Amino acid sequence: MESQVIEIAYALDTFYFLVSGALVMWMAAGFTMLEAGLVRSKSTVEILTKNIALYSIACIMYMLIGYNIMYGDGFNSLIPSFMPILSSVDNSVEEVLLSDGEIYYSNLSDFFFQVVFVATAMSIVSGAVAERMKLWAFLIFAVILTGFIYPFQGFWSWGGGFLDELGYLDYAGSGIVHMTGAVAALAGVLLLGARKGKYGPKGQINALPGANMPLATLGIFILWLGWFGFNGGSELKVSDVESANAVARVFTNTNLSAAGGVVAALITSRLLFGKTDLTMGLNGALAGLVAITAEPLMPHPLLATTIGFIGGVLVVFSIVLLDKIKIDDPAGAISAHGTAGIWGVFAVLLSNPDASFVAQLVGILSIFAFVFTMSILFWLILKYTMGIRVSEEDELKGVDIAECGLEAYPEFTAGRK
Amino acid sequence: MESQVIEIAYALDTFYFLVSGALVMWMAAGFTMLEAGLVRSKSTVEILTKNIALYSIACIMYMLIGYNIMYGDGFNSLIPSFMPILSSVDNSVEEVLLSDGEIYYSNLSDFFFQVVFVATAMSIVSGAVAERMKLWAFLIFAVILTGFIYPFQGFWSWGGGFLDELGYLDYAGSGIVHMTGAVAALAGVLLLGARKGKYGPKGQINALPGANMPLATLGIFILWLGWFGFNGGSELKVSDVESANAVARVFTNTNLSAAGGVVAALITSRLLFGKTDLTMGLNGALAGLVAITAEPLMPHPLLATTIGFIGGVLVVFSIVLLDKIKIDDPAGAISAHGTAGIWGVFAVLLSNPDASFVAQLVGILSIFAFVFTMSILFWLILKYTMGIRVSEEDELKGVDIAECGLEAYPEFTAGRK
Amino acid sequence: MESQVIEIAYALDTFYFLVSGALVMWMAAGFTMLEAGLVRSKSTVEILTKNIALYSIACIMYMLIGYNIMYGDGFNSLIPSFMPILSSVDNSVEEVLLSDGEIYYSNLSDFFFQVVFVATAMSIVSGAVAERMKLWAFLIFAVILTGFIYPFQGFWSWGGGFLDELGYLDYAGSGIVHMTGAVAALAGVLLLGARKGKYGPKGQINALPGANMPLATLGIFILWLGWFGFNGGSELKVSDVESANAVARVFTNTNLSAAGGVVAALITSRLLFGKTDLTMGLNGALAGLVAITAEPLMPHPLLATTIGFIGGVLVVFSIVLLDKIKIDDPAGAISAHGTAGIWGVFAVLLSNPDASFVAQLVGILSIFAFVFTMSILFWLILKYTMGIRVSEEDELKGVDIAECGLEAYPEFTAGRK
Repeated sequence: MESQVIEIAYALDTFYFLVSGALVMWMAAGFTMLEAGLVRSKSTVEILTKNIALYSIACIMYMLIGYNIMYGDGFNSLIPSFMPILSSVDNSVEEVLLSDGEIYYSNLSDFFFQVVFVATAMSIVSGAVAERMKLWAFLIFAVILTGFIYPFQGFWSWGGGFLDELGYLDYAGSGIVHMTGAVAALAGVLLLGARKGKYGPKGQINALPGANMPLATLGIFILWLGWFGFNGGSELKVSDVESANAVARVFTNTNLSAAGGVVAALITSRLLFGKTDLTMGLNGALAGLVAITAEPLMPHPLLATTIGFIGGVLVVFSIVLLDKIKIDDPAGAISAHGTAGIWGVFAVLLSNPDASFVAQLVGILSIFAFVFTMSILFWLILKYTMGIRVSEEDELKGVDIAECGLEAYPEFTAGRK
Repeated sequence: MESQVIEIAYALDTFYFLVSGALVMWMAAGFTMLEAGLVRSKSTVEILTKNIALYSIACIMYMLIGYNIMYGDGFNSLIPSFMPILSSVDNSVEEVLLSDGEIYYSNLSDFFFQVVFVATAMSIVSGAVAERMKLWAFLIFAVILTGFIYPFQGFWSWGGGFLDELGYLDYAGSGIVHMTGAVAALAGVLLLGARKGKYGPKGQINALPGANMPLATLGIFILWLGWFGFNGGSELKVSDVESANAVARVFTNTNLSAAGGVVAALITSRLLFGKTDLTMGLNGALAGLVAITAEPLMPHPLLATTIGFIGGVLVVFSIVLLDKIKIDDPAGAISAHGTAGIWGVFAVLLSNPDASFVAQLVGILSIFAFVFTMSILFWLILKYTMGIRVSEEDELKGVDIAECGLEAYPEFTAGRK
Repeated sequence: MESQVIEIAYALDTFYFLVSGALVMWMAAGFTMLEAGLVRSKSTVEILTKNIALYSIACIMYMLIGYNIMYGDGFNSLIPSFMPILSSVDNSVEEVLLSDGEIYYSNLSDFFFQVVFVATAMSIVSGAVAERMKLWAFLIFAVILTGFIYPFQGFWSWGGGFLDELGYLDYAGSGIVHMTGAVAALAGVLLLGARKGKYGPKGQINALPGANMPLATLGIFILWLGWFGFNGGSELKVSDVESANAVARVFTNTNLSAAGGVVAALITSRLLFGKTDLTMGLNGALAGLVAITAEPLMPHPLLATTIGFIGGVLVVFSIVLLDKIKIDDPAGAISAHGTAGIWGVFAVLLSNPDASFVAQLVGILSIFAFVFTMSILFWLILKYTMGIRVSEEDELKGVDIAECGLEAYPEFTAGRK
């Protein structure tokens, strides 16, 4: 009967992993809705296509290559190796029973959980480059990021590489996942330039309002729900009292940090602009979620709320600032995932006694430097081969017609010029 | 090994609680989509803002105050006390092992589950006061309801207060949660008055149709799904045969009651109006869900279907009646949560031999009286300090532009006057 | 304590079943959003009404009749019998403990899981007959399909009937659920005819683009998420190492097959039409999900991706072909569920050594023949009694106004002729 108890614990942890992974998969829908709501109607079909395609590409590339690099032991602590069987072979009953508790969940449940993380990282990019980037150039970049760039740096922390050795702490990936996506997006935006009409010749910043606010709001709620899997699953284990308490704390803190972010961003926008800006509130939720991701376990719930609150203030200023320096990010993705991600990595220092400022700083700097350099490199290759920006004519007409031959809302916008 | 078995059971119950809580959190998205679909486009951004803000406020206020009141033991069976550590301290392994099965889930998982309930209660209010209420007055009321009014009366039943002693039975809160929300909404609507143009000078009732029916329908499906957590989690335990069977029965009955509500409301609307009214079908689902919430365990599945069916009939008549007496509730929230909630509390008598008519009646009356009085009081304070209704000009222009400076669908309504 | 271990395993399997069932219930929302996005705005309210009503009818009819037929032992291997207590009585603790592991989950959790499957089958029909079919004729057909036709053939495989004896393998129902829905839809479409204006007099095929692409995309993401319950729950057990590994494999393969379908359909549409057609990508995801459903456990993840990929190619050609022969299916449901379903049933031969070509062929043919014959029969009865097609005038005006007295987007389409 002792073996049955071990098997049940294994089953519970595996099931918990799979439920968490399903929730993270659901975040792909969240990013899709958020971005589809924040772009103009003429660019909506293309952003939908990009999102469902990038999720699919991420899953396939990570199965073929990424996972087997990231967790493949590594040549040394800087360079990952490749162990191609990882994403298909599972533990035998004997291995589990003889492992003395070392093996406590299905390997494929781990793969499933990890694969939806890489899709998250890539989802961040699509919002920032929306409305002006070529569809297939974007999809090729998705192949590169999810098959190579993300797992390469992921190996440093979660695969046992040098950042892990250094003591860099990033529970569910404020830096490893979210900042990575934001930095890859930043590189793309710098090379692409702003959308036509976004910045006027005399320094004006023109609002190009998104076409569908309920959709954007739905996206944030989906992300919020999915984040319970993202952070909650990252405890990796639930089957004993301590782990179960930890998962409960992570759920609670994740929720409160998002709540803090919403309240902060709404108040900040009210004070700054005189209006209570919904899109800022939505980005505040996201910033709260991103900020708590590096350490959702250790903070007292009050501190978690505060970490989210600060994230919510930061994201508003970051969005305003990026617009001032003409970095055109239609979804606010660079601020919500990048700025709040960096804040989150340092916020670990507020509650985790094992964290060191140096390790967190080295983590941020090395991930930033690597992802930015690699991304710029591949964006440049794409730029000088197939091109990354659609023609001016296609942009004016809308990438939906140009790239997908389809309109998102053909009946509602028919009277439009 | 015996301790490992106890720990696994604790972990399973905690995980079940967290999954249930995540589903209830998802109901916040459901209310948001439902309400955003049922208001006009010019009031959509504001209802989105209210919903994400009220959820956030509910979480923070309940952590700071509400939870620590509701479950803080109480001065006596009428007046709750305050025990501030409740929402941050969890059980140690020793406490669990020595509790002889008394402590079987994480305290923070309980907090998480309860916090999403209070958000549900507050979500009910926003739909009823839509399109004409000041945003920040509403948010201040959210602070009051979620921090004080809801937990005060919640203590009476679930915190061990006098309604619990009296034998008032309300499994997951047809009265405690849903009627509470509806009564607070009713108080607000009475003080606010109807939307401009809703009722004509000669007694006409003008339809002000909602802008987005797919969104409203999505909202109902989200609520339906979330209700499996709302009712299913309220068994509080799943880790033995009897509890697991109970949870399965609750899922089944919840689903069937909603189904009965849909069928009843569609048939009723077809007979009354000659058309099969989708919005009535949606409110029928909600009424079925609310009605079964007070006792989803004991009824035979056939009875559960019938309870929902009756709820579905009642909600149609209630909506028609409220319109006749010029209580303007754009989302039908007072009918779906109030009328059906009261029906649900009495429907407990149909299947639960421990229920008494007197206890159910006293429960309904005392919750109604307390919540109504307190709500009227605070709405009045708000009315005579900051005001609760937007100016006529802002209402005509739309609260979106006035309060949030943003349009929900800027491209689709551009040609509109 | 041994009994406690058995009870916990029972609880875990029951909870896993309920979570899976909730995810499948969520697929009802997915079909609703998908179909609401793919029809024109004047037919949107009616498709929403049909979907929420059919789900409700399916739940009630299956409780009353269907489940008790499908799993009621049967008169012989061809004809089911009726055992009316199935959907309300659960296992006692004693039965579970004495069953030696034979009874390992709540009977009502099984009912809940099965009931959401029959709703899935019926959901497939509504998309194909959209925009021209009478609402109540459709709902009466829902009564027939979910109460009788589906459970009758379901008994053959899952109730221990002749297809089970023959060795027909269909893990979660590529044929039993998805092809059944598609065949019932095909029968309806053949009798209904195409929408006015779909096919011109000179053989033109006119695009009648769907009104809301983000909604359709959301629908696919919902279905994708729900499918983890659909396939993942069909293992029926999770509580030991082997089962847990199996569920993890099923999640992984289901996800990858959908991903393969998306990539394949997008590439195929790009090659065929010169544009990257989002709706094809969405149907590719669906085809991948349907195709892997007959055997999501045995394939290597690479093979699973390939099965989805082939499904994604097939669905594009199938949609084009059906249009050529003037079978008008607004949602592509016949192709995504029928063509991909048949492919899925035969794809079992690629990985499962127990599968035989003959058994798979006999399965497909007998389900197809039975469902098609019965459906045609009942559609004909409906046609010659109450009629199945709305008047030409109502179709032009839109079924929303004619049947439901409501518009889906009253403000966005107001200027339209």
